[in-house]
Amino acid sequence: MPKIVDHDARRAELAEAMWRVVYRDGVGAATVRSIAAEAGWSPSALRHYFATQTELLVFAMEHVMAKATERFTAERRTGTVRDVVQGMLEELLPLDRQRVREAEVWLLLAARARADPAARKRMTEADDGVRRAAEIAVAQLTGERSPDEAAVARLHALLDGLTLHALLHPDRLPPNRMRELLATHLDQIV
Amino acid sequence: MPKIVDHDARRAELAEAMWRVVYRDGVGAATVRSIAAEAGWSPSALRHYFATQTELLVFAMEHVMAKATERFTAERRTGTVRDVVQGMLEELLPLDRQRVREAEVWLLLAARARADPAARKRMTEADDGVRRAAEIAVAQLTGERSPDEAAVARLHALLDGLTLHALLHPDRLPPNRMRELLATHLDQIV
Repeated sequence: MPKIVDHDARRAELAEAMWRVVYRDGVGAATVRSIAAEAGWSPSALRHYFATQTELLVFAMEHVMAKATERFTAERRTGTVRDVVQGMLEELLPLDRQRVREAEVWLLLAARARADPAARKRMTEADDGVRRAAEIAVAQLTGERSPDEAAVARLHALLDGLTLHALLHPDRLPPNRMRELLATHLDQIV
Repeated sequence: MPKIVDHDARRAELAEAMWRVVYRDGVGAATVRSIAAEAGWSPSALRHYFATQTELLVFAMEHVMAKATERFTAERRTGTVRDVVQGMLEELLPLDRQRVREAEVWLLLAARARADPAARKRMTEADDGVRRAAEIAVAQLTGERSPDEAAVARLHALLDGLTLHALLHPDRLPPNRMRELLATHLDQIV
């Protein structure tokens, strides 16, 4: 009987090993070699799944998007519409180690997106997700079904700009400062 | 008599060759090999100046900052304070090919900044420049000497968020749309 390989299960196993490396040592440490070691695979077995560093980042971004969606679904913040919207958008900001690691993956993939179609495709999916969150936020805050396009685009730009600045200068933009800046921006949308 | 080499002149010559490659073919094409060919040097002579791709990007970013400063100084927009501020900040957005190429360098360097101290140092200098422009903008718009910190941080995040989105989705964020979004944001600061 031929050996039966469950590719989805193997991919899930790899995703977990990859994320343990990223979480512990940063995305720069996530190479085919280090992930293979973490998973207990041979590097050549892993290269069957990921031939290049970009394929690895594309896969990592899939995990990032799944985690963010999970948090959105689990989010049970009560209070005013304003509080609920703030809570939803905070899931997208690098406010703890998990989300800092997610943002690192996002930035590395963004830097490859102009030159690499696979990176661009995954980045576009991720961007669309953040964009939808910004749309929901503006719709909720203003009570309008079709939210103002400019307000959505500005909120989206603010979220990604803050994420970038927090990655580059964590000392200047600690979590509470990011929360305050988001809150000030949401106040102006209301 | 020993051969006299003017290192500053050679660096300037290299900067021009590098920028011709970046401008024509994109920053991804700017390798030690392609820049050496453009400058008419041997790759090994060029490696005397830049041993790694990051050193090359750090050097390219120096050029980007010099060009932005030149444009700031040359900017002679007349009209209201609002118009002058808008004109100044537009120099920092990827509104034409020159500034798109500059933004590409910025994004690639940003992606390396967390792992590489030399990249981080140059990125911090560049960020400080944009931050100062945002400070001047808010001070001018509100007429206050010490501008509101939150307004400055939000404008800075907006500028970098728009830059990132325009690089990733030029079809969704053409130059006029970027100008409009910046204008809407400046209106709210006033």
